[in-house]
Amino acid sequence: MIIIGERINVRTKILGEAMRNRDFGPIKDMALKQVQAGADTLDINIGPARKDGPALMEWIVTNLQEAVNCPLCLDTTNPEAMEAGLKVHKGQAIINSTSAEPERIAAFMPLAAKYNAQIIALTLAKGGLPRDAAERCALAAELMSAAAEHGVPLENIFLDPIVVPINGQQEQIPEIIEAIKMFRELNDPPMKSVVGLSNVSNGCPEEMRPLINHTFATMLITAGLDAAIIDPLDSEMVKAVKTTDCLLNKTLYCHSYLDT
Amino acid sequence: MIIIGERINVRTKILGEAMRNRDFGPIKDMALKQVQAGADTLDINIGPARKDGPALMEWIVTNLQEAVNCPLCLDTTNPEAMEAGLKVHKGQAIINSTSAEPERIAAFMPLAAKYNAQIIALTLAKGGLPRDAAERCALAAELMSAAAEHGVPLENIFLDPIVVPINGQQEQIPEIIEAIKMFRELNDPPMKSVVGLSNVSNGCPEEMRPLINHTFATMLITAGLDAAIIDPLDSEMVKAVKTTDCLLNKTLYCHSYLDT
Repeated sequence: MIIIGERINVRTKILGEAMRNRDFGPIKDMALKQVQAGADTLDINIGPARKDGPALMEWIVTNLQEAVNCPLCLDTTNPEAMEAGLKVHKGQAIINSTSAEPERIAAFMPLAAKYNAQIIALTLAKGGLPRDAAERCALAAELMSAAAEHGVPLENIFLDPIVVPINGQQEQIPEIIEAIKMFRELNDPPMKSVVGLSNVSNGCPEEMRPLINHTFATMLITAGLDAAIIDPLDSEMVKAVKTTDCLLNKTLYCHSYLDT
Repeated sequence: MIIIGERINVRTKILGEAMRNRDFGPIKDMALKQVQAGADTLDINIGPARKDGPALMEWIVTNLQEAVNCPLCLDTTNPEAMEAGLKVHKGQAIINSTSAEPERIAAFMPLAAKYNAQIIALTLAKGGLPRDAAERCALAAELMSAAAEHGVPLENIFLDPIVVPINGQQEQIPEIIEAIKMFRELNDPPMKSVVGLSNVSNGCPEEMRPLINHTFATMLITAGLDAAIIDPLDSEMVKAVKTTDCLLNKTLYCHSYLDT
């Protein structure tokens, strides 16, 4: 499974300041740490970035791709900032994200087409959160149609079923697992999926969150999940992901498989 | 998921001696510990028990059911010892086990019928281990026919797909997961399944075995596993099982769900 490292986020104190001050050191450190810990790609969350968005995204992408040899997942709701990042990104970037809302489709699908980027497509519409696996699939089908209209190949889409907290919306959790399975049936080759994983344990006691997150990761990978936005510095999480992939015979077992 | 505690086994030094000397203290202690740790039922493995089998099984079952208020899983290849245990067992016992081999079917299916016991049915024939999920299902169908012939209701059967070690037979692991899913389709209501879980990590370094076991448990429960023979004194295993059941919405989430 593809690990998208979640730690570069403007809302964290140190990295938010580093972004505002164009101080690349802390951002580079966090990038290197995540890649060494097993991240395949890094989420770069600069938030709404209304003022300085394009310049900030261009600066981060250019510098980061000199520091780490991996594609990036560009995370902003500002389409100009997104495009500024895509312009300078080498290799295939991931756009994070569109939803099924018309204005987000209009803003981000054309960018995915123009830059041959992958794109995370949230199964989310104006009416609020989807209520079950079937609603998630209906929204997935809308997103797939929109992609086709805009010339985005379906293999560039990661469908996101929207993870909600077990504390308060427990009955939704099996629906999310079911949605991951159903997404695969929407096309051949199977549609790919992604989740923002840690939301499942939002509102749970801190000491319980890792176990809930790791267990949920194993369950979703078993259901067919292709990628997850997680904290790669949570080494137990990375071990759970590696062990699940190994038990699914996707990576070769050897006594040192956790070290590689 | 039903936790069958695996710790009462004649092959362990202390409990083997306790069985031979009819010293009930250590056996009772181990039974209470496992039930307190979350076991729903206890496996009582007295081995082939060729000489003293019937008297030993009768003694253990009688004394254990005075000490702990749960059904037992009687584990011996000696049919006379099995019957001696079933005769004195209160409530519904589990017979561990038959396979698809004719002489084991002939020995144990009639006992399951006579005592209305549940029975673990290994998808294992003379020819050796099943090679994939389809072979496991073919053997399951043979076992279901044999049960019907002997008057054993299908809801009393736990199909066991035979867990093999990841170290050496990695390609079998996804077949085992698939078999658990396929077993459910063999009848309506779904056929139940059970595994001896820790075999998956036989031959792996000791420090890696818990992670592999816990991860595999989560994967199998997600696939629909009904029961597992595990070590309930491995508290991380019990937590993984509880967390998986909770994420599947089978038990109610509350902040203290791990304590209950």
